[in-house]
Amino acid sequence: MPAPDLNFGPRILELAERLAVYSELPGALACTYLTPAHRATANELAQWMRDAGMAVEIDGVANVVGRYPAAAPGAKTLVVGSHYDTVVDAGKYDGRLGILTGLVVIEHLNRIGRRLPVTVELIAFSEEEGLRFSASYIGSAAVAGSFDRALLERRDEGGVSLADAVAKTGFDPGAIATLARRREDLAGYLEVHIEQGPVLLQENLPLGVVTAIAGNCRFVVTITGQAGHAGTVPMGLRHDAAAAAAELVLAVERRCTGVPTLVGTVGKLQVPGGATNVIPGRCELSLDVRAADDATRDAAMADLRAEIAAIAQRRGVTIDLRETQQMGAVACSPRIQALFAQAIGRLGIKPRFLPSGAGHDAVNFGPITETGMLFVRCGNGGVSHSPRETITAQDADLAARALLDVLTAYQE
Amino acid sequence: MPAPDLNFGPRILELAERLAVYSELPGALACTYLTPAHRATANELAQWMRDAGMAVEIDGVANVVGRYPAAAPGAKTLVVGSHYDTVVDAGKYDGRLGILTGLVVIEHLNRIGRRLPVTVELIAFSEEEGLRFSASYIGSAAVAGSFDRALLERRDEGGVSLADAVAKTGFDPGAIATLARRREDLAGYLEVHIEQGPVLLQENLPLGVVTAIAGNCRFVVTITGQAGHAGTVPMGLRHDAAAAAAELVLAVERRCTGVPTLVGTVGKLQVPGGATNVIPGRCELSLDVRAADDATRDAAMADLRAEIAAIAQRRGVTIDLRETQQMGAVACSPRIQALFAQAIGRLGIKPRFLPSGAGHDAVNFGPITETGMLFVRCGNGGVSHSPRETITAQDADLAARALLDVLTAYQE
Repeated sequence: MPAPDLNFGPRILELAERLAVYSELPGALACTYLTPAHRATANELAQWMRDAGMAVEIDGVANVVGRYPAAAPGAKTLVVGSHYDTVVDAGKYDGRLGILTGLVVIEHLNRIGRRLPVTVELIAFSEEEGLRFSASYIGSAAVAGSFDRALLERRDEGGVSLADAVAKTGFDPGAIATLARRREDLAGYLEVHIEQGPVLLQENLPLGVVTAIAGNCRFVVTITGQAGHAGTVPMGLRHDAAAAAAELVLAVERRCTGVPTLVGTVGKLQVPGGATNVIPGRCELSLDVRAADDATRDAAMADLRAEIAAIAQRRGVTIDLRETQQMGAVACSPRIQALFAQAIGRLGIKPRFLPSGAGHDAVNFGPITETGMLFVRCGNGGVSHSPRETITAQDADLAARALLDVLTAYQE
Repeated sequence: MPAPDLNFGPRILELAERLAVYSELPGALACTYLTPAHRATANELAQWMRDAGMAVEIDGVANVVGRYPAAAPGAKTLVVGSHYDTVVDAGKYDGRLGILTGLVVIEHLNRIGRRLPVTVELIAFSEEEGLRFSASYIGSAAVAGSFDRALLERRDEGGVSLADAVAKTGFDPGAIATLARRREDLAGYLEVHIEQGPVLLQENLPLGVVTAIAGNCRFVVTITGQAGHAGTVPMGLRHDAAAAAAELVLAVERRCTGVPTLVGTVGKLQVPGGATNVIPGRCELSLDVRAADDATRDAAMADLRAEIAAIAQRRGVTIDLRETQQMGAVACSPRIQALFAQAIGRLGIKPRFLPSGAGHDAVNFGPITETGMLFVRCGNGGVSHSPRETITAQDADLAARALLDVLTAYQE
């Protein structure tokens, strides 16, 4: 256990503030893949890692990789990572908290001269949010060996391809595959992340052990009914696309409520060209369903498809579901869950196990090595992707202590 | 009864085609207030009325007024009217059918040399749809004495005020009040109109007797919940504005179904800036509730307000209703309803009584004289405000015969 007079919290918050000065926008945080702000952030992180005793490299896709060697040669590598890119008008902790927690822990280990049974690679992933090229997880996918070469042709709004953007940094985009770690060299993957939700806040707990990262499926839904005059078509003769959409929204809510880890959301909803005195002939919406295991999600979707078909039939409308995304859930390693739970317990806190509804870089490591995540309480009702995102120094300190505990206990 | 070999239908349809050539758009019908197409339409109508033996004037707001004098001097005036302006990309019968039905009937009376106990004023109203100045019923309001002078300051999209547009025709806009008829001179008001809905079509009936013109109330509804990440906020912790909107939509549908003449519509519906992975924090929608009598409408709105308040309370969202319009219902004269019903019966057709859910020029006459309307079946599922609007020559013929019957039977 670390000395009781240690306090990692203020330093983590201070470093988060210092990183946030590199931004594409005045007065707001935006750090998009391979922009000047993004490059400046990478250089700053690299310097801090060097100062903490790590061997540092900025790799071909702009991940910042700091290597803290094990006590003995030949040890496997435990990756501690999260991302440093942000959304536009972002909070300061989404992604960065995980990097900085790792950084302060290694600073501490280096200061006291302690090496571990495993080599730790602290990786600040360059791209997770998917803003610039509409492709998420570019950084972690490269390291995990799951980078999709087809993405190289994707272009940003300015017409620059991902291949061109990478090439401009001096790296051959055709060589991204060489960044992949070999499975047999990995001891595991750990990621500390702000929860981005209200669960820990509601339960008055600073930390949570992630059980799984939810998979999701997404659909674009188009409902076609029959437009008509709001005054002249009796209720019984209508085929109102918005009323059908309303039933669908409530069916999603009903089916997903009360089932642990399952959530369903209609985030987009509109009657295109709607007018006060016209019965909606068309309604467009999005559907996003997630669960910590695929069977739970698939069962919900099967029920919803049947219910949606029944709504369409009963109302004389057509409802078209076009699937736009399907990602499988990633279960976290039971051993790492236990390690985090023990560490939290040693801090005098009740371990709370919860799934991650949001995706994280960890999903790329789940298939290749033991993977685990630690969630940190998110203030302000759990808001993230917003400058209102907040954490406390105390919670940051507890997260770093828990990570330090797990790192020192970690065996290959 | 007219001679059985009469057939008004083909002439009504032919005249509707001839009027439709005057348009602001190539290949589509648009005839907006005081445009060149509108002036040409007025001139054509005036010529036709003159040819039918009427004394014709185009009045200061561009109504075309044809006077067919009574058999004896000192008789009161029965107004037969409807409008000749159209929406953009309109059908050929909305409004115009009522003018042309009156025209062919007076052509017939003039041809056989028959005068009636009342003077008939056939009025082609210049403005009903409200497109140019966002003000409906300008033509009939002027004649009925309910023109609102404040509208003179309204400007069209090009910045031209209603006052300027009227003045440009050579008429003093300050003198619009002088166009009003005196109540004591009026014997009544009759309007033939395409139903613009599916009721007669569904029941396989060519004609319907209008019992009342529905009043309506309209609201802009804003629901404020709490935005959140679609993956990280459990169902039980959400305050989803779209889910609240869905409940509202279905509450409106449920409350208005099964109550004669009552209809409720949410025509606009959207989550502003909605995203697939964001729980809606805000939803905006319109609400339009109508009934043939105000008590029915008001009772529905009272229940809906209570239910909406309950939805807001239960979901922890706020729902703001801003009323943007309230118009009282106009009951049709029982005597005129009976006259139309008898005329329909004499044509061998079952009289069907039904309310008008849409507003018509007749609403301006309800408060000042006995008022009645005859509906004509609308084809293509009841679609109107569309080039797909259609009637048959046979139905047009039956409408003219029924109108002729009522005109000849009409006593002051």
